[in-house]
This record gives sequence, C-alpha cells and structure tokens, in this order.
Amino acid sequence: MQLGMIGLGRMGANMVRRLMKDGHECVAYDLNREAVTQMEQEGATGATDWQDLVQKLEAPRAVWIMVPAGVVDDTIAAISAYLFEGDTIIDGGNSYYKDDITRYKHLHERGIHYLDVGTSGGVLGLERGYCLMIGGEQETVSRLQPVFTSLAPGVGEIPRTRSRSGNPGPAEQGWLHCGPAGAGHFVKMVHNGIEYGLMAAYAEGFNILRHANVGQQSAESDAETTPLRDPETFQYDIDVAQVAELWRRGSVVSSWLLDLTAAALGDNLDLTDFSGRVSDSGEGRWTSIAAIESGVPAHVLTAALFNRFSSRGEADYGDRLLSAMRYEFGGHKEKSD
Amino acid sequence: MQLGMIGLGRMGANMVRRLMKDGHECVAYDLNREAVTQMEQEGATGATDWQDLVQKLEAPRAVWIMVPAGVVDDTIAAISAYLFEGDTIIDGGNSYYKDDITRYKHLHERGIHYLDVGTSGGVLGLERGYCLMIGGEQETVSRLQPVFTSLAPGVGEIPRTRSRSGNPGPAEQGWLHCGPAGAGHFVKMVHNGIEYGLMAAYAEGFNILRHANVGQQSAESDAETTPLRDPETFQYDIDVAQVAELWRRGSVVSSWLLDLTAAALGDNLDLTDFSGRVSDSGEGRWTSIAAIESGVPAHVLTAALFNRFSSRGEADYGDRLLSAMRYEFGGHKEKSD
Amino acid sequence: MQLGMIGLGRMGANMVRRLMKDGHECVAYDLNREAVTQMEQEGATGATDWQDLVQKLEAPRAVWIMVPAGVVDDTIAAISAYLFEGDTIIDGGNSYYKDDITRYKHLHERGIHYLDVGTSGGVLGLERGYCLMIGGEQETVSRLQPVFTSLAPGVGEIPRTRSRSGNPGPAEQGWLHCGPAGAGHFVKMVHNGIEYGLMAAYAEGFNILRHANVGQQSAESDAETTPLRDPETFQYDIDVAQVAELWRRGSVVSSWLLDLTAAALGDNLDLTDFSGRVSDSGEGRWTSIAAIESGVPAHVLTAALFNRFSSRGEADYGDRLLSAMRYEFGGHKEKSD
Amino acid sequence: MQLGMIGLGRMGANMVRRLMKDGHECVAYDLNREAVTQMEQEGATGATDWQDLVQKLEAPRAVWIMVPAGVVDDTIAAISAYLFEGDTIIDGGNSYYKDDITRYKHLHERGIHYLDVGTSGGVLGLERGYCLMIGGEQETVSRLQPVFTSLAPGVGEIPRTRSRSGNPGPAEQGWLHCGPAGAGHFVKMVHNGIEYGLMAAYAEGFNILRHANVGQQSAESDAETTPLRDPETFQYDIDVAQVAELWRRGSVVSSWLLDLTAAALGDNLDLTDFSGRVSDSGEGRWTSIAAIESGVPAHVLTAALFNRFSSRGEADYGDRLLSAMRYEFGGHKEKSD
Repeated sequence: MQLGMIGLGRMGANMVRRLMKDGHECVAYDLNREAVTQMEQEGATGATDWQDLVQKLEAPRAVWIMVPAGVVDDTIAAISAYLFEGDTIIDGGNSYYKDDITRYKHLHERGIHYLDVGTSGGVLGLERGYCLMIGGEQETVSRLQPVFTSLAPGVGEIPRTRSRSGNPGPAEQGWLHCGPAGAGHFVKMVHNGIEYGLMAAYAEGFNILRHANVGQQSAESDAETTPLRDPETFQYDIDVAQVAELWRRGSVVSSWLLDLTAAALGDNLDLTDFSGRVSDSGEGRWTSIAAIESGVPAHVLTAALFNRFSSRGEADYGDRLLSAMRYEFGGHKEKSD
Repeated sequence: MQLGMIGLGRMGANMVRRLMKDGHECVAYDLNREAVTQMEQEGATGATDWQDLVQKLEAPRAVWIMVPAGVVDDTIAAISAYLFEGDTIIDGGNSYYKDDITRYKHLHERGIHYLDVGTSGGVLGLERGYCLMIGGEQETVSRLQPVFTSLAPGVGEIPRTRSRSGNPGPAEQGWLHCGPAGAGHFVKMVHNGIEYGLMAAYAEGFNILRHANVGQQSAESDAETTPLRDPETFQYDIDVAQVAELWRRGSVVSSWLLDLTAAALGDNLDLTDFSGRVSDSGEGRWTSIAAIESGVPAHVLTAALFNRFSSRGEADYGDRLLSAMRYEFGGHKEKSD
Repeated sequence: MQLGMIGLGRMGANMVRRLMKDGHECVAYDLNREAVTQMEQEGATGATDWQDLVQKLEAPRAVWIMVPAGVVDDTIAAISAYLFEGDTIIDGGNSYYKDDITRYKHLHERGIHYLDVGTSGGVLGLERGYCLMIGGEQETVSRLQPVFTSLAPGVGEIPRTRSRSGNPGPAEQGWLHCGPAGAGHFVKMVHNGIEYGLMAAYAEGFNILRHANVGQQSAESDAETTPLRDPETFQYDIDVAQVAELWRRGSVVSSWLLDLTAAALGDNLDLTDFSGRVSDSGEGRWTSIAAIESGVPAHVLTAALFNRFSSRGEADYGDRLLSAMRYEFGGHKEKSD
Repeated sequence: MQLGMIGLGRMGANMVRRLMKDGHECVAYDLNREAVTQMEQEGATGATDWQDLVQKLEAPRAVWIMVPAGVVDDTIAAISAYLFEGDTIIDGGNSYYKDDITRYKHLHERGIHYLDVGTSGGVLGLERGYCLMIGGEQETVSRLQPVFTSLAPGVGEIPRTRSRSGNPGPAEQGWLHCGPAGAGHFVKMVHNGIEYGLMAAYAEGFNILRHANVGQQSAESDAETTPLRDPETFQYDIDVAQVAELWRRGSVVSSWLLDLTAAALGDNLDLTDFSGRVSDSGEGRWTSIAAIESGVPAHVLTAALFNRFSSRGEADYGDRLLSAMRYEFGGHKEKSD
C-alpha cells in the first residue's frame, strides 16, 4: 500500500527501504533536501514540502512520522494542517505515551486517526526487521496491517512457544496492537526500561570480572582504608572478551545484547574508544516515573538509570558533600586515589 | 576418554548421557543406588562405593563431582582418600571460588590435580550442551579437553563475532579456561549474578506493564495518600504474554530468558502456580560480596538479589519499624490496603 | 496579626493554637462543624462557611489552607471566589510544587497573592514549632512574617553554626523564603524524600541487627539453597531497643528519628502493633521524579521509596515471574520457607 | 582505675585525656615516640615498649588498643606476648567482628580476656564522650565498667525515652554490653552502615536541590537526548546552606549529621575544597556483606556504599561498556556533555 514517511534519518530511511523491498509505495519527505534526493534515487517518490507530501498520497492517507521526540508535536502540527478527515498520522518515534493520549484527542476531534508505534530494531532493523508496539483504534490498525507486516521481522526461525498453535498471530510476526492511544509507546517505554536494566546487568558483571585482579595491587593500611582482607582471592586476569564469547553458547545469559558485547570487546578489550559518559533518552526515565506513579517497585531498572546519570558526573555535588561531612565528624581528608 | 561421575541428579545424569553419546566411557556413582542402576541401564559402568569407583578407572583418573555445594567438601574428602598422585578431581557444581583455592592447595600437596568448572545449561543442557567456565592448571585442562568439547554446545549456528577468524577457539565452542584455581567458579559466579540482574529487569518491566491499569481503580483521597494524579494515563489492560512473544523478534531485549518468559506467560498469564517466594543459591550473593570486597559498584545486581530477599518476607521487621516511626512523628496509622 | 485557617485537622488545629498563644487572631473554618466549635472554645473566631470566613477577616486578608493534597484545588476554588484583590492564599499542605506554579499564575491574574508553605513538624509541632519552607513573592512573604515567626520553632537552644554571626536570620528561627512560587513545596518535597531515606537507613540497619541470630536456625543443604557459610558468626541476640537508646548519645547516627525509634522499640520490641504495610504520601514519589527529570542520581532515596511499595505487596507479580523463569530454565520449585 | 592505651592517634589520645580528666590512671604507648611524650606532658605515664607498658600496669591488667584495623592483629600478637592470665585486651578500633571471634578464642586459650568495643564519637568525642558498643564476657565487662562510664557521654540533657524509669541503665549513659565476643563490633558495624545511608540521603537530597535550576540551561533536541519536558518547573536557585540551617529546627530530618552539613555548607556553599572522591572504611562494606550473608535486604545501605565506589571512578569500565553497547545496536555516539 501507499505510505508517506516524514523524517529520513537513520531509522526512517531504512524503514522506507524495507517497505519498498516488500512492494509498498513510499512518498518521502525530510527538511534535509539531500535525504529526499537519496530516497528518490532508491525508488521513493520525493516530496518538496508538507503540502506536496499530502498531494502525492491518495485518500485515506497514512503518514508515518520518524523524527526526534522533541519535534514530533511541531511536525504533527505542520502536516495535520494539510490532512483531511479519515487520514492517519503514525508516530513511530520515541514519544512519551502521555503525549499520545493528548494528540489522539486533538486529532480525533478533526477526524484524523492517530497511531503510536514504538519501534525497536536500531541500525540492524533494515535487515532484521522492526519490532512494532502499536497503540490506537482497532480499525486504523487493521487498515495499516500490510505496512506493519512488512516492517516487522516475521516469524523467522525462532522456536515456537509451546502454548502457540495454528497460524502465527501478529505477535509471532513481530508486531502487536497493545491497546488504545498511548499503549504502543507505553510498551515501548517499558521495553527500553528493561533494556537499560539488562545492559546495566552485563556492564556491572563485566566490571566485576575486570576487577578480579585487584589483589595484585599493593594495599596501604591506614585509618581511612581497610585493606583488602584476602588479596590472594583477587588475582585473576580474566579475558572478558573470551568470557563474552563463551556465554553466547548454552548459557542462561545469552542474548542479542551479549552478542553485541562480545563484538565490542572483541574489537577493543579496553574499550578505549569510549569515555563512559552514557547518554539516556526519554524512555528509561519515563519507565521509572511510570513505576513511581503506579506504585510499582523498580529497584533494578531505576538503578540502571541512575548509573547513567552518575556516569555523566551528576552525583558530584552530593559526593563532595559526603566528603565534607566525613571531614566534619572525623577529620577525614579525601584521598587522591 | 574415561571419566568418573559422582552425583547423578538432574545435572550429573544428563552430563553422563551427553558424554556417552559422544563416545566417552563413564563410571557413575551416587549415594542413591537407584540412580546408579538407571545409568547402568543407559550404558554407564556403575560403582558401588568410593573405592569401587576409583578401581574402575584407569590412571591418571579423572573424577567429576556434581553434588550440592554444601556437600562438596565431604565428597572430595571421601573420594580423594582413594585417589593417587596424578589423578584429577573436577568440581562441576556451584562452589564458592574461594573454596576452590583452598581445595586446590590441599590436593596439590598430595599431587592430586583439581579443576573448578562452572557449568551453565540447566535442564536443557543435555540437548543444548553445557557452557563450561574452567579454573585450574593449564596442563590438567589440556588433558581433559575431550570431555569439555563433548559437554560444551559447540560452535552451533550462532553468527560469528566479527573480530574472529581461523579455527574456532574454545570460547566459540562453549568452554573456556578462565585462569588458575577458582577462576572457573569466579566467572560462573558473576554469570549467575548477571542472570539475577537480567531476570529482575524483565520481572520489574512486566510488573509495570501489568499495573498499567491502576487508573481504573477508584482512588481515595486522605492525608495519608496522594491520589494518582493522572488516572486517565493508567488505563491499559496489556496482554503481557503477547508482549513477551512480540519482543522475541527484532527487539533489543530478546534473549533466552525472554523465550522462557514467553513460555511461562503463554501457559498461565496470571502465574497462579507460583507464590512469589524467590529462592537464591549462593552465586548471586557471592557476586555482590565480590563486588563489595573489590570496591566495584553493583547497584543493579545487588538490587536484584535484595528483591529476592524481600520476596521471602525478610524486610518485614524493617517495614514494621517504618510504620512505627511514621506513627511516632505523624500519628499515621497503617492502612489495610 | 489576623489569619484565616481552613482545615482544622491534626495540623491545622495545632497551628491555630500556636498562633493564638502568640497573640494572633484566628478565624477558623472546617467542613466539620465540631472542629470549628472546638476552636471557638479555645479562643478562635469560628466561621460557618466560605463567605463568612472572608467577611470576618480584614483586608488585606490572609487565608491559610491546611487540607489533604487531593482537595487543595477545590478549596482554593471555593475560597478564592470570595476573596478580593490584594488578599493572600497560603497553601500549607503537601501540594506538588508544579501545582503551585499553576495556582500562582491563575490567582496572580486576579490580583490574589499565593504562597506555598511546606510545613514540617508533625504531631509535636504545637510544642516544638513548625519548620516552614516558603515559596512566592518577597513582598507577600514579608507581610506575613509575624505569622511565620510565631509558627516557627525559633532559635531555641541549638548550638549556632560557626559561620553565623549577628542577629539570627529567618533560617535560624525556623522559616525560610526559598524562592518564587513552588520553591517552598519543592524544598519540602526534597525534605520528605530525605526523610524516607533516613528512615529506610535505620529500618534496614535494625533489621540486620535483628537477624544477627540467623546462625542459630538449622540450615538444610540442597541444590536450591547454599547453607550459611559461617553460622557461628550469626549467633547474636541483640536487644535492638537498647541499641537505639545507646545511639542517642554521642553517636554519629543520633537524630530525632532515632529518638522516635527508641521510643517505639522501648514500648514493643517486636513491633507487633504494626503489619509492615508502609504508606507513602506524594512527596517521596515527587522527589524521585524530580531527580529523574533533572538527571540527578538518587539511588538511596528512590530505593527507600520502592521499599515502601514492596512492603505493600506491589512486587508480587514480578516475584512470581522470577519463580516461573527459575522453573523454566532449572526446574527449580519454589520453597515454602 | 588503671588502663594501658596503645595507639595515641586522634582517637586514642583524646580517650586518654577524657579518662584522666575523670581520675583514671593511664599508661600510654605508641610506636611514635613524640605522641608518648605529649601524653606524658598531659599527665599520663609513658611506656617505651610493649614490655615496659605491661610492667607499668598492675594485675589484672587492662590494655586498650586503638590502632588502624589493618594492624590490630600484629598489635595483639605483640602485646599479648607479655601479658598474663587474667589480663584483658580491649580492641576499641574498627575491627571486623568475625576477627573478634577468632581473637577471643585464641586469647581465651591462654586465659587472657578480650573485649571488642565499637567506639563512635569522632573528633568531638573528647568533649561529647564516646558511644561504646561492647562485646565479650559479662564478667570482664563488669570489671571495666568504670572505664566505660568515664568514656561514655553520660545521660546528658537528652529527653528520656517514655518507657524508661528508675536509675538510668548503661545504654542511657552511652555504653552497652551487646553480647558475646564480636557483638560490640557487629553493632558498631551496623551503626556505620546506617551512617552511610543517612549521609547518602542528605547528599542526594541536597544534590537535587542544587539542580533545581536545570531548566535555566538551554536544552538541545536530538535523537540522543529528550529535552526537559517542563523547563519552567526547574528554575529555582536554592540556597542550600540556608536550607540546611532551616531544617535544624523543628524538622523531621534534624540530626547531628545535618548540623555538620549546615556547618560545611555555611563555610563554602560550593564545597570547592573537596573533589568528591569519597573514601569508605570497612564497616560499611561489612554491613552489606552481613546483610547478604544473613539474607536481609539492604537496598538503601548498599546503594550508599556503591555510591562511594562510583565516586572514585570504579564504575568506569562498566560505563564504557554501556556506551559501546549503545554504539553497537543504535550507532549512538557518546556526547561530550
């Protein structure tokens, strides 16, 4: 079927490619003219502005927005000015699900449909397909099913879950209608929250392995520091790249994230290309906020989030206050190492 | 080659089967006579007691111990009394790596070799193979390489890590010599610590999804409780079994643990077969202790561990104290719900 | 000076008493007629309804609202309908500071002043005075200074901070103008967040002391559970009521919360009057949300919050999922104890 | 009574002074000859070596050891060589309680008594007195009661706990016999664990207050970072020194640690004298380890400990791995700020 795509960055461009490969017709638009030209060369119809995009689509139109979370509302305002009753806007980015509820209401008043589609897949999505978490009205979801089917990974060679039988349902094909407006981004939000937790579990574990040789360092003994009690039990120089490779086979902790870890460590065991300032986008934060608002404990997911904040130096003032308190009650001076 | 196996429980029996399938000769022993008979029927040589086991093996002997962590020392004491210089004991259970260092030293004095082999694979190991993390002397590891190769999963169909070339090394076949005595169980310990973290990340995430409908419950407003600010944003009845199935395809959080989660939720969405008292064996505890001893932060792994303690009611006295403090300073009464 | 008080519950009534004791004239109102009568008997002027309250105050009026957070907006709507330009509304409850910003804007358009006053003190405030954290315009704060001075604890016998000299400032008297609208409740919010953290620190510590005798319990050894390694090091029956009393003197952890802990434990060491379902009002949640929104790590404060959620059984579904996963990969059955 | 003191550092010297002020006779020894001379000038009897110390004491002797945890065992070995049956060694330092159990056993075999005394008080102990947590045999504790009474703060002006009546017991005077060997240091260990938690609660809270103005910074919007949703709600420049001062009066979070915080912030709001590398001595670690070993959740105390590790850069390798994973699956580059 026909689909308009707004935003031809890393994600949007690859999604257009995957759709065209499956026979869909794409009208592509981006504020960056070069990105549009590139897509035209690959077979898409390019659009020159919002109006042009709309005019090149047949009613009922479907426009997929794939832009940074901070400019989604502006983009919706811009394109919806040209859309007609019965058309559909799909936000495939990383919006806060509460914004979806608001957008749905506003667009609904004008007769424009709205779907929120959490999209996982990253740079490998073109090849592997995109895992799609969808919120919105059933009828709109049904109409766009061909698009979802093409973007999703499909059943693949993954062993079937034992409770399943008959024809594979949407979830087995890699897309799911999760509920009404916002439900798609709600599920995607929690997906990313879990992702933070999984990543932190690996990071902490490999960090412990990496420190298994701390007993080799000479320890000083003073009133500030208790020496390592059993230095002879921390004498291991563990090759963590080999360990990551090992765990990919037959182990309980095997996963795609572990595959990526093995790749990164295989290239550079010391990870010297990275400084350790870990960014976070919105979903991890929103997951913890949702947990707090709904009264659900999320010790692990939230610790993973706070670890990222700390990696960026945001604990510094508090840390200095701790040193100040120690100085006040015990005369403890900070140690340089 | 020839191997003695002590302990024919879930793990030990399947390992014997996997070894025999690959042409190895196994002498099997267990305090439970029936377990020995069963193995005999499947082709193993049964042993009637410690001495018999040793006599049925040719020097240099290799005896693999697969018993609960709490009885490993007694088992080593029992069997080593009959072993000779040059023989090898392999502890394939879940021992604390510091015990391995002690055992290695004691056995080394008598000329008996010792390997600690962390073994991951669970109930599916017979079919999938066992991921083996090995500590000890290089020479001993080399001599037993045929056993490790047979037990390990092998290269399989897992895509090769991009930095790898040439013949697959041991890690790619699913076993690894991690370092001197204790290194195998050290790596296995951290493996399980990571496992706790991964599991907790999924558990917390699915719990948040499960509570996405808390806005449907009527909220009361009093001085004790602030009402949910936006009940209309927590109205989702999310089918978490479908979500687990969905994420198995194309998502960043796909993993073997997620496959298991999808299976469990597919059978029983409400998980009514379980009470939620989560056990923990030693490795998760030891991982956090190792992190503390070596001065490495492990917020996530340790939170996962403490979540398990809390699930068994071990926070209760502290919780009552919190309620008591609230009563003291604010006259707050506990609410029954 | 003259002040109207709306809300004569535990907090509001005592604040009226403290104000009257210092010579202020209070007009008191509550939906509960009996509460008004009680205040009349103690010397306040009672009001029969919103209009009556306003009429009994002289311009420029000041009305202090002391009601549950969930009904503050309704109360402001009700009373502000009768107020005039130049009058002031003070919200002394536990509002979310973001609501203060909104209320300030709305009332400002009508020429009505608004102060948000975070109030700490609890049931002992009548005697000890109330610690006041104030947000709003400087001019309004200045006009109400006599009220703040009377409600606040005053300088008292607390040793002076070494950097202070000259006449004691407001902070030394127990009240502070923290910044523009919302700043008062922002500071109070963080105050309560810290309170959660402090309380949890004591609760966890006393819980550890209480379990110092776990080595006395017989331990079973099986594949599910590693026995306590050194049971002889957990043989202490520690009288935690005595410990709490002890720490009140000369210790780094002495505090008012510890005084309350000693009182509670002194009455009932086993805390059998409490079930351990710990409530939380909004501020603890909002503190963690503010930390997340502003990118500040708050591992400890948020763990304290999540501990409370867990105490109310909100981790249960996640815990059952953990048990289900363990059963899937290891065949582990839950243990009843 | 007569007491030998080994170790005349910050703590030991002040304890000698406090004892002499109360009429006790002290024989003082330190490897540092100058420290001994100083004590002699203040009225103590100086000792020149281990033997001299013992000879200047009358049987049954009592020798108090106040040295860094790392050299306690060597000190005990040195002095005990000269002691006689019936003499007593008191370890007043920060030993691991499990070491006390071992020491007690060894010394008991030789008829030498041993007490472990956790000592809180810091640099202000000379004036305020020391809070003493004592483990060992009842008879030995009773004999040394005069020493404990002099060192402890005494009843002071602290309001009496409501359940107390009659003559003040030891806990009310600031010392307590907590149980058999090790119990004193066990209680002191948990005391310090709580201290870590309390300190972290304040540090995190003040850090949040300090960041209440993040909305003033211009936010960029890209695919890596979600902009602050409500920058207008983070516009507060809060004077945290004033807030610390404020909370000292009438607030639930008042404490001695808060007094110290107010002092430190009053001197230097930006805490520029400190780098934020927070040391930790053994007790905080041992508290978390004890919690893990005894199966007690300690989310808050352990998070406080891990925060200190992170402040010293010990999370770096794990953080780099997180960035590496993000690069692998999403092509995300690290941001410099």
